[in-house]
Amino acid sequence: MEKAVIISTGEELVTGRVVDTNSTYIADQLFASGVEVVAVLKVGDSRERLLWALREATDLGDLIIGTGGLGPTADDISTAVVAEFFGRKLTLDEEVAQGLKHRFESRGYPWTPNNLKQAFFPEGAEIVPNPLGTAPGFRLRVREQKAIIWLSGVPKEMKLMLKQTVLPWVAGHIQEAQAVLQCTFKIHGLTESRLDDIVAPILFNEGEGLAFRAHYPDLSLRLTVRGGINKEARFQELKRRIRELILPYIYGEGDETLEEVLGKLLREKGWTLALAESCTGGAISHRITKVAGSSTYFKCGAVTYSNESKIQFLQVKNSTLQRYGAVSRETALEMAQGLRRAAEADIALSVTGIAGPTGGTPEKPVGTVWVGIAFQEQSEARLFHFYGDREHIILGTSQAALNWLRLTLLKR
Amino acid sequence: MEKAVIISTGEELVTGRVVDTNSTYIADQLFASGVEVVAVLKVGDSRERLLWALREATDLGDLIIGTGGLGPTADDISTAVVAEFFGRKLTLDEEVAQGLKHRFESRGYPWTPNNLKQAFFPEGAEIVPNPLGTAPGFRLRVREQKAIIWLSGVPKEMKLMLKQTVLPWVAGHIQEAQAVLQCTFKIHGLTESRLDDIVAPILFNEGEGLAFRAHYPDLSLRLTVRGGINKEARFQELKRRIRELILPYIYGEGDETLEEVLGKLLREKGWTLALAESCTGGAISHRITKVAGSSTYFKCGAVTYSNESKIQFLQVKNSTLQRYGAVSRETALEMAQGLRRAAEADIALSVTGIAGPTGGTPEKPVGTVWVGIAFQEQSEARLFHFYGDREHIILGTSQAALNWLRLTLLKR
Repeated sequence: MEKAVIISTGEELVTGRVVDTNSTYIADQLFASGVEVVAVLKVGDSRERLLWALREATDLGDLIIGTGGLGPTADDISTAVVAEFFGRKLTLDEEVAQGLKHRFESRGYPWTPNNLKQAFFPEGAEIVPNPLGTAPGFRLRVREQKAIIWLSGVPKEMKLMLKQTVLPWVAGHIQEAQAVLQCTFKIHGLTESRLDDIVAPILFNEGEGLAFRAHYPDLSLRLTVRGGINKEARFQELKRRIRELILPYIYGEGDETLEEVLGKLLREKGWTLALAESCTGGAISHRITKVAGSSTYFKCGAVTYSNESKIQFLQVKNSTLQRYGAVSRETALEMAQGLRRAAEADIALSVTGIAGPTGGTPEKPVGTVWVGIAFQEQSEARLFHFYGDREHIILGTSQAALNWLRLTLLKR
Repeated sequence: MEKAVIISTGEELVTGRVVDTNSTYIADQLFASGVEVVAVLKVGDSRERLLWALREATDLGDLIIGTGGLGPTADDISTAVVAEFFGRKLTLDEEVAQGLKHRFESRGYPWTPNNLKQAFFPEGAEIVPNPLGTAPGFRLRVREQKAIIWLSGVPKEMKLMLKQTVLPWVAGHIQEAQAVLQCTFKIHGLTESRLDDIVAPILFNEGEGLAFRAHYPDLSLRLTVRGGINKEARFQELKRRIRELILPYIYGEGDETLEEVLGKLLREKGWTLALAESCTGGAISHRITKVAGSSTYFKCGAVTYSNESKIQFLQVKNSTLQRYGAVSRETALEMAQGLRRAAEADIALSVTGIAGPTGGTPEKPVGTVWVGIAFQEQSEARLFHFYGDREHIILGTSQAALNWLRLTLLKR
């Protein structure tokens, strides 16, 4: 198996309502598995066009991965059209049908007959379980040793189906020499072009390379080594070279998020954290608490937009707010210190700034943010500047604050 | 001109490094202009595959819009391949060449011969100016009255080229009757299949239709009316029918988010809000404060994970926590009442539940959530059940809590 074609279906894709991130994710995962994506085809919920896509995909590739159109409604036609194209009957999978009914009953949802549609599959297909949704996918061996796999179009469901079932199957069907060694570094504190400059001196052989990916506020660098005799040794050597060059900027590897890395660190140290947020409005608390098990180290968060709430909940002095303003080193420090004491936490992180679009001044323009960190015996505050719209500034602030906290904890 | 095909080119698209937002933007603009996008094709920087894409696109559509591969480097092959496919010679456009040289000189950039490549176009092409970049695009009339337009792959440049040159040209080439009327309803409280059932009795003529979109926790329904004699009257009639059938479930129209709708409502009433979150960990505060101007109605938020913080910051009674537990009607009510008083807000919303993956019990399984709303004179609490993983439960809770708050405010 060497060449893949991805088909994304859905009227929302061809009418421009939704960006198709599914095909990008699948292409990325296939690339990493050593499978080349020849083309991506996006079509609406139309039988005729889906038939066209299936014809072209079968011509171009030996693995076809499609998404979307597995649901219960009238415009969900993918299963039926795939069956038609490959000349298979649709047959009911009793186990899936029972599972669906059970799911509806246990949740008290009304069972409507159209839901049974999701239990029909092309004859001979194997089910691809969908742990997060009602519509399972399927995998079908078709002519000339080709395979077609169809997954839910809901990104979260698709990702889990791909990881749990599809990628292991793909890995079992590609040749050893094709297999790719890869590793992704998660980076903070460098722009893409600066990162490009720093790693430029590394020399690569054929089949080796770096790929950058900037998805604000994340930046990642992926190393791939494909083929070659001493593949593994070469891979380790290149990893070492990269780490030498950019170590201070790497916060994690693989799929790790910054909040997961930070959670691990707090757990290791046995420290508890409290968060005082102004301009980020709960975004940092939300990131920290998204991590399962965060209740062991997260004490509490205070979203204190107004001056009064900073005084009341964080014991910030009114005189400090009057003299230095809400966006200042002094206020950031008092916010962190006040909450740390009140929450009886080991550490408190505070953020106060101007997320915009209004509220900026010539001295403190939109994007000005003070971040404070308080320990029992010592506190510090740091000034940051961010650019872009409100959401961009909130995102950038949360990333920078969490990373500074990470670096501070590492030094202790 | 009725049917369009979009071609996105670039190795970064088929290796999953970059999400293709260009085709989504173009599809959206074409849809609004009344042009149907039949398919989107994504291929890498390969002559053979681009030739395939051009062949298919010319078969399927009468307007082809391509992006990418117009730059000066060796992997920028789009212009040459388009010329080859349609049997045109490449010719130098003197004006573009002069403009390029001038641009390089005036900015002090070194002029390298490969830059001249960007001044060659297929014979007979008209130039599509690119005010933001060095590579202009082109438009070519090809066989059977079809047209192909090629634009820069840099999203910012592409958007301006599309708006300034392409869309006005498209508008001049489509028939009045093709223009589309459309409207999107944002929905909460129905599953996709239930919604499908409810709207099933509506009868549609050709060129009219409904499209569902489920993007958890959002569900939306888009009505489109294309063609027909009494288009506008028919559009209003269908909108009225839909509203009749699902009014209680519609929280907004168009691109409005639930937090924006809620913000508008609070502003109209002149009321202030405080948020006491346990299992949602700041997600609701984050949603509320993402809206610009939310500081006028958002007082503060408290993320109180631990029992101690519920007692300390929200004045929940220890005896309540002991007797009923943290996830209970009584605790939800005291959280909301306590924060409302402390924050001096008109309304407080509280959330306490079990987001998982651990912490569930047979009586209170993962996904059990109590939501409380406190006004000065009256409070209520409601029990919800959510399913899925931690993130799913947090998202679902935030949506349900905000929608219940919206409905409660509407009744007052």
